[in-house]
Amino acid sequence: MPLYKAPLRDMQFVLHELLQTEKNYQSLPDYQETISRELIDQYLEAAADFCENELSPINHSGDQEGCHFNQGAVTTPVGFKEAYQKYTDLGFTSLTASPEYGGQGLPTLLRIVISEMLCSSNWAWAMYPGLAHGAMRTIEHHGTEQQKQKFLPHLVSGVWTGTMCLTESHAGSDLGIIRTKAEPNPDGSYAITGEKIFISAGEHDLAENIIHIVLARLPNAPSGTKGISLFIVPKFNVDDAGNLQDRNNVACTSIEHKMGIHGNATCVMNFDGAKGYLIGPENRGLNCMFTFMNSARIGTAMQGLAASEMAFQGALNYAKDRLAMRSLSGAKCPEKNADPIIVHPAVRSMLMTQKAFSEGGRALAYLLAEQVDIGEKSTDSTQQAYSEELLAFLTPIAKAFLTESGNESAKHGVQVFGGHGFIVEHGMEQIVRDARISTLYEGTTEIQSLDLLARKVLKSEGKLLNNMIGLIEQFIQDHRNNADLKPYLDRLSELKQQWLSLTNHIAKRAKQNPEEIGAASVDYLYFSSYTVFAYLWARMAQVALEKLAAGTQEDKFYKAKLSTAKFFYQKLLHRTEAHAAAIETGAESVMELEEDAFAF
Amino acid sequence: MPLYKAPLRDMQFVLHELLQTEKNYQSLPDYQETISRELIDQYLEAAADFCENELSPINHSGDQEGCHFNQGAVTTPVGFKEAYQKYTDLGFTSLTASPEYGGQGLPTLLRIVISEMLCSSNWAWAMYPGLAHGAMRTIEHHGTEQQKQKFLPHLVSGVWTGTMCLTESHAGSDLGIIRTKAEPNPDGSYAITGEKIFISAGEHDLAENIIHIVLARLPNAPSGTKGISLFIVPKFNVDDAGNLQDRNNVACTSIEHKMGIHGNATCVMNFDGAKGYLIGPENRGLNCMFTFMNSARIGTAMQGLAASEMAFQGALNYAKDRLAMRSLSGAKCPEKNADPIIVHPAVRSMLMTQKAFSEGGRALAYLLAEQVDIGEKSTDSTQQAYSEELLAFLTPIAKAFLTESGNESAKHGVQVFGGHGFIVEHGMEQIVRDARISTLYEGTTEIQSLDLLARKVLKSEGKLLNNMIGLIEQFIQDHRNNADLKPYLDRLSELKQQWLSLTNHIAKRAKQNPEEIGAASVDYLYFSSYTVFAYLWARMAQVALEKLAAGTQEDKFYKAKLSTAKFFYQKLLHRTEAHAAAIETGAESVMELEEDAFAF
Repeated sequence: MPLYKAPLRDMQFVLHELLQTEKNYQSLPDYQETISRELIDQYLEAAADFCENELSPINHSGDQEGCHFNQGAVTTPVGFKEAYQKYTDLGFTSLTASPEYGGQGLPTLLRIVISEMLCSSNWAWAMYPGLAHGAMRTIEHHGTEQQKQKFLPHLVSGVWTGTMCLTESHAGSDLGIIRTKAEPNPDGSYAITGEKIFISAGEHDLAENIIHIVLARLPNAPSGTKGISLFIVPKFNVDDAGNLQDRNNVACTSIEHKMGIHGNATCVMNFDGAKGYLIGPENRGLNCMFTFMNSARIGTAMQGLAASEMAFQGALNYAKDRLAMRSLSGAKCPEKNADPIIVHPAVRSMLMTQKAFSEGGRALAYLLAEQVDIGEKSTDSTQQAYSEELLAFLTPIAKAFLTESGNESAKHGVQVFGGHGFIVEHGMEQIVRDARISTLYEGTTEIQSLDLLARKVLKSEGKLLNNMIGLIEQFIQDHRNNADLKPYLDRLSELKQQWLSLTNHIAKRAKQNPEEIGAASVDYLYFSSYTVFAYLWARMAQVALEKLAAGTQEDKFYKAKLSTAKFFYQKLLHRTEAHAAAIETGAESVMELEEDAFAF
Repeated sequence: MPLYKAPLRDMQFVLHELLQTEKNYQSLPDYQETISRELIDQYLEAAADFCENELSPINHSGDQEGCHFNQGAVTTPVGFKEAYQKYTDLGFTSLTASPEYGGQGLPTLLRIVISEMLCSSNWAWAMYPGLAHGAMRTIEHHGTEQQKQKFLPHLVSGVWTGTMCLTESHAGSDLGIIRTKAEPNPDGSYAITGEKIFISAGEHDLAENIIHIVLARLPNAPSGTKGISLFIVPKFNVDDAGNLQDRNNVACTSIEHKMGIHGNATCVMNFDGAKGYLIGPENRGLNCMFTFMNSARIGTAMQGLAASEMAFQGALNYAKDRLAMRSLSGAKCPEKNADPIIVHPAVRSMLMTQKAFSEGGRALAYLLAEQVDIGEKSTDSTQQAYSEELLAFLTPIAKAFLTESGNESAKHGVQVFGGHGFIVEHGMEQIVRDARISTLYEGTTEIQSLDLLARKVLKSEGKLLNNMIGLIEQFIQDHRNNADLKPYLDRLSELKQQWLSLTNHIAKRAKQNPEEIGAASVDYLYFSSYTVFAYLWARMAQVALEKLAAGTQEDKFYKAKLSTAKFFYQKLLHRTEAHAAAIETGAESVMELEEDAFAF
């Protein structure tokens, strides 16, 4: 069973060397006084300690035990409650919330970096505070002052948790057709009635109260997505001072049996005239949700990254330890009866792939989190708008690609273990099972692909894509005289051109046939993702070259960065060619088969 | 939970129209009298009835219940024993065995086609007779006449089953380092001592006796693979007339907790001076195993195909049924509140991918099974040698690619279901969990890749590859005037050239550095596999065009073949480009990172 070791050195590389966080955050007035390299490192070390020593040891046992359901109550696996208590004691629930409600007012970036460690060490557990954060953030952004006073302090302290109640059994990707209704009560509250499914952390024994954020329809609301409103529905009613009152009419009626994330309760929630409070404007519930969506999607991206990282750690340890066959170029450990399998190129390729996905994913995720902070806190409106656009553009890429590459890494993790990977006790198959949800929830890979191509790229008439292209061009320009970077810059230059021409190609075809967008979207997402990774790996290579040129005691670390960049460019980046070629063939072969001719 | 429906029409297409089985088998004296289209269809229908009505209904329940272990005894899930009884009553265990020992003397092809249905409808169950077949075949090929008389009749009738005991906890891919020992007894038998793990069907309640085929070392045997011998070790000792006697000293000490195939007992087997009988020559056990290996690997390939087929069937039904969002080109079912998701290109792409893998895999598997029969039964030694070579070449491709594509299809199956795919009751996640073993056992994908590139292609100095290239060239030549086929032939022609030049490229590099072989092998396997599929899809397209030109009442069926061929060429075949480009970059980026620099 792989035990988690926080990759602090690599996290620091991305934060301090690649993104230069300290410098960048100095320009944001809210963080000018607080954010320093030292503070970040202190938080990282505290989180690493908690994740390695509290969460990692209950990860596998939590999977095996799962959650227990008994007459509406959910008991989490052994150790989950105690770990949650420690987590709140350490103040991790209050990181980003406003000091007005008891928060520490720290940047999202810090929360995201810590969430990487939480997800890696115990994905199922990490979802409890993860969902609570979603609820907290929604109230902070859209609640009235009274709602904030009433609900936020206990959410911020972690005494309460929260959920996001969106999905119904017939409505997942398509929220426009939800049926849960909200009828006005005389006191200004609403009676919420309906059944929600797939409610992560909907019921559990970690916290005193659970604050549900619920999508529902007001009477006579327009049909479709424009008739959905958002409500706060507490498990226990709460007075204005935040004291618990009677039980509200919301109950968990069962929990799902799932492929993975067994330690997290996925609940069917029944709202039976439950008292709820409208949050945000009537019929604008989905819009309110969308402000939260980017951050929720980065959260899921972190889970994908976590799968890559854990699968890499497990596989690497095993590959150094397990003996089988001799190296093709002669025995490497002649004193043993076989060589460790890390000498074999096919095993190395899998490890390098995991490493490239994990470290590249880390760079992308932290870059995104930085855009969240700049978008929210910058006083320069141009910079703010730019960051918001970059965030909007990169979010579907990060969500879809980090989760898909996380699944690929998890597969390699099992594969490196051979038959032992299939055995429960080694813990590698759990990573596959846990990771599988990540390409499904918070918008499937297919939904992300449409979001990227249709909403972000085509609807903005290329503006959001051009921002990204601009970043790449700037990087090429800045380092055009760097001979060591030339192979990277040359390839980036080609990719950038191809990206633009593929986009134009799709836009042109889509004018004739809108199905062209859907048919191209998934390949387009992968093409875009590999290109974004290529940009980030080139940037990381550039930093490593700079450090090596300047002289460093960490030669091995920087050389490993260069080797991984090279591996990414030589072995993984060519996948763009398959995706580009597939895009160019258009929609015909996808659409022509009649529905009744798929099987006979 | 998807219920299995045997794709009889497609099976018949491959058997009767693509491979022209009846005609081909007329040239094999053993089958001249027996094999007809009618006979094949009768067997297919009987097997379909059994699989759809007996095995499919206990597939999901078997996964959920799993096997029970109690003091050395294993109880299989509810219904497994009764289904096995029916299976033997129907005579399926005796299909291919020689009539001398009670068999029906039918071709391997028929067994393989039926095994597709068994694996698709209930993978875990199908492994019990699958392993028995392995043991049976080994004894038939390598046993003495006395051993055959003693062990075969009850194996053939299915009253007994069998296993293959190879793996030890420290030795999986590398059988050269096994430790189980065989010491001569005064009576000519051997005392077998050691522990074997991952023994599928090692203990269970389906049969009266279990005949283990065990790899062990004789005293003073040479070290490595050249010092391994093969033994028959029955669970109950047997007299010469085949009557059960006392219990042998072999026992199941535990069963593994696994990711999937829960209905099949994966046993730790302890041999404590168990009585065994040498089979085949001393120290040639691995060679004896290898004659069985190709057929075992086709068996695993069938499991991969089964995963594709089941995932396709489940996803297709759901995609026609589930409503979400509107088609990008306008509502397709305006009377409903959303369109069925099969209208969406991204969903269609997943279904078409599964269909292309499943039907292409079927063609490859049946073609291979045909080579087994020709290799064994042809009286024309040139034809025989050619079939054996083709089999040797295509087996690692079929084993690795059908299982990897089966895993990909299973993933798409879950994805089409969205969040519901993650829920146990829908049965789609079981396909992912079951399928995961198939790229691990019977030689991992990486082992198959080395087998293909190093043993089959390079060691034969290209001869085995040239056979395949010859088939492609012949096909191109035969249909060069067929305008409708031109896009396929042009692409095949390019691929064939590229295949040769990649091979030369690797061979040249390997002379400098043998690691080049390992570094290229997995990409080479994928390149080869997609090219073989391209050949088969072109052949299927040609048959479909011919039928349509001749006039048929099955227009839809043949047009669907053409659409699927087109989809394969346009959307999946371009993956060769990524693999080719990765091969061309060589081993450096795979090998250069030092072992202690993978993580910091």
